[in-house]
Amino acid sequence: MKIGVKVLPRSEVLDSQGRAVEKTLAQHGKTVAACRVGKYVQLEIDAPTQEKALEQAREIASFVLYNPLIETFELEVVK
Amino acid sequence: MKIGVKVLPRSEVLDSQGRAVEKTLAQHGKTVAACRVGKYVQLEIDAPTQEKALEQAREIASFVLYNPLIETFELEVVK
Repeated sequence: MKIGVKVLPRSEVLDSQGRAVEKTLAQHGKTVAACRVGKYVQLEIDAPTQEKALEQAREIASFVLYNPLIETFELEVVK
Repeated sequence: MKIGVKVLPRSEVLDSQGRAVEKTLAQHGKTVAACRVGKYVQLEIDAPTQEKALEQAREIASFVLYNPLIETFELEVVK
């Protein structure tokens, strides 16, 4: 089962990559209201049910994929 | 409107970050079948319709967010 982990910097944390993308876009006339840059990790997990896979993915995300002090994450089931 | 851009390395490209995560997890008894590490960018776009927002996001992604030689991307509407 494929589980996607979307990691984004918390809104109160300075997201320098996001600022850089915003600035570059603005300089080229492609303005966006906001931009945040994070990580996307796709895990392929062998689990009997979707719930078990999500549970394992949550555990793995908390273990190595994100820093709770500065980031948040969200899981999704990839079809 | 919030549009998420999920960027992943192409399957034929060596994904060293993914290999590193797999190895670390295996060393801690949390084996996954596969892992790919990419980027996640959340754009906030002012557009009259969802289609327009997706079109703009696609243009922005192709312009600065991904390298077609080694990466693929996918868009999603964030609720």
